[in-house]
Amino acid sequence: MDLKIYKIGGSILDDEPILSAFLNEFSQYKGPKILVHGGGKLATSMGKRMGLEEQYVDGRRITDEKTLELVTMVYGGLINKNLVAGLQNLHCPSVGLCGADGATILAHQRPVGKVDFGKVGDLEPENFDLKLVRLCLDNGFSPIISSLSYAPGQGLLNTNADTMASALAGSLSEYYSVDLYFYFDKEGVLDGEAKLIPVLNEKAIEKNIEEGIIRDGMLPKIQNALNALKSGVRAVYIMGSQFFLKPYTGDSHAGTKVTLL
Amino acid sequence: MDLKIYKIGGSILDDEPILSAFLNEFSQYKGPKILVHGGGKLATSMGKRMGLEEQYVDGRRITDEKTLELVTMVYGGLINKNLVAGLQNLHCPSVGLCGADGATILAHQRPVGKVDFGKVGDLEPENFDLKLVRLCLDNGFSPIISSLSYAPGQGLLNTNADTMASALAGSLSEYYSVDLYFYFDKEGVLDGEAKLIPVLNEKAIEKNIEEGIIRDGMLPKIQNALNALKSGVRAVYIMGSQFFLKPYTGDSHAGTKVTLL
Repeated sequence: MDLKIYKIGGSILDDEPILSAFLNEFSQYKGPKILVHGGGKLATSMGKRMGLEEQYVDGRRITDEKTLELVTMVYGGLINKNLVAGLQNLHCPSVGLCGADGATILAHQRPVGKVDFGKVGDLEPENFDLKLVRLCLDNGFSPIISSLSYAPGQGLLNTNADTMASALAGSLSEYYSVDLYFYFDKEGVLDGEAKLIPVLNEKAIEKNIEEGIIRDGMLPKIQNALNALKSGVRAVYIMGSQFFLKPYTGDSHAGTKVTLL
Repeated sequence: MDLKIYKIGGSILDDEPILSAFLNEFSQYKGPKILVHGGGKLATSMGKRMGLEEQYVDGRRITDEKTLELVTMVYGGLINKNLVAGLQNLHCPSVGLCGADGATILAHQRPVGKVDFGKVGDLEPENFDLKLVRLCLDNGFSPIISSLSYAPGQGLLNTNADTMASALAGSLSEYYSVDLYFYFDKEGVLDGEAKLIPVLNEKAIEKNIEEGIIRDGMLPKIQNALNALKSGVRAVYIMGSQFFLKPYTGDSHAGTKVTLL
């Protein structure tokens, strides 16, 4: 059976008309589907209201105890439950989950190396328990999953939403034919002339990385896409969130399709 | 089939050793069970950190937009997901929900009378959709439910946790033999000499209200208990949370059992 997994972040969550259009599209697809979401600007602004300062090392956020509280509140509560309410308003039966629910998305705290990332979870896809998610899917409920993972015996951990979507998609490939959709602020993977690359396979990706065309923030996204494909996901689409506001014109909004071969 | 529904609030949530003992007891009961929770002091202290002032009219909190955000973050996110993680640590499969998940607990915004309570939901038990909760229960997952209700076409609303537990218990009585346990900071309903009343029926309740023995904060609690019983709940127990720290000595911690007859 087909399963579509969508990952959205700030580019959709922070823009009310785009979010509204996305939820509408999500709810209109009637097959089994999952939404994985991160946080966006809301976590930052709530953090400021609470007097928290974001800490970054090499562009990556450090998650101390207070930041984990913030993320649990904003991702796991405010955003997650409002996404569910928004989808229920569109008659899309949905259930807001995090990695701890049903012990679905297991992780361990990232070992301290040069940097101590704090309460950050490195995923253990081999230990994911998919019973709850499958129960929801097989009974018509769409899981809406915030990017909090769970370390048994410890508790919640912060995990990158792209990585979580990729690992979950890979695990669920044992049971479904999974297509994974990453939405972000560009229309897809762009070439040296800022033009959309419609299709990329592993070989082309390696070439584009060598030539410095795929770089910076696109590197971990592409790596997550490849990881998903190597775990059995059928196809990964890296797409712009803007298209939700444009009329559909054939494949013009299809973004970049990533495959292995 | 038997179903136990537990409602906990600040007297358990605000006290780490009591909470830990409660979760241990909850996880050890192996039959179908639900936990309904409110917020406690955490919402107040988070609100203060965010510069929100609590507003009360006649001892009842007014829920403006910002307070609803706070409650969604703290009840629906921070407390709910940490309760789930704590229970998973005890090998108790659980799922953190609010009223919007599966459109389970439906409500409408309280009409403006003498007081505008703001984003407060008056429950519509006749419109509850129990499919998701029953699916969880029948597959070994305990629903952990924060006291946020859902108004279709609108969104989340704040609802008193006792009232929500009572209405949910009543609705589920169609499918299960439900016992409902309210935990609070006293050992049960107390008589004029501050001694525990072990059993109360409707007639005795009326007499105690007339005599001013049941009053103040106990009045809505007793009303919720009676409403649950009239909706088919088998028995309601109003109990102290302190007993979780005491060794079990027969029925001494059984609190007050409330029945109709």
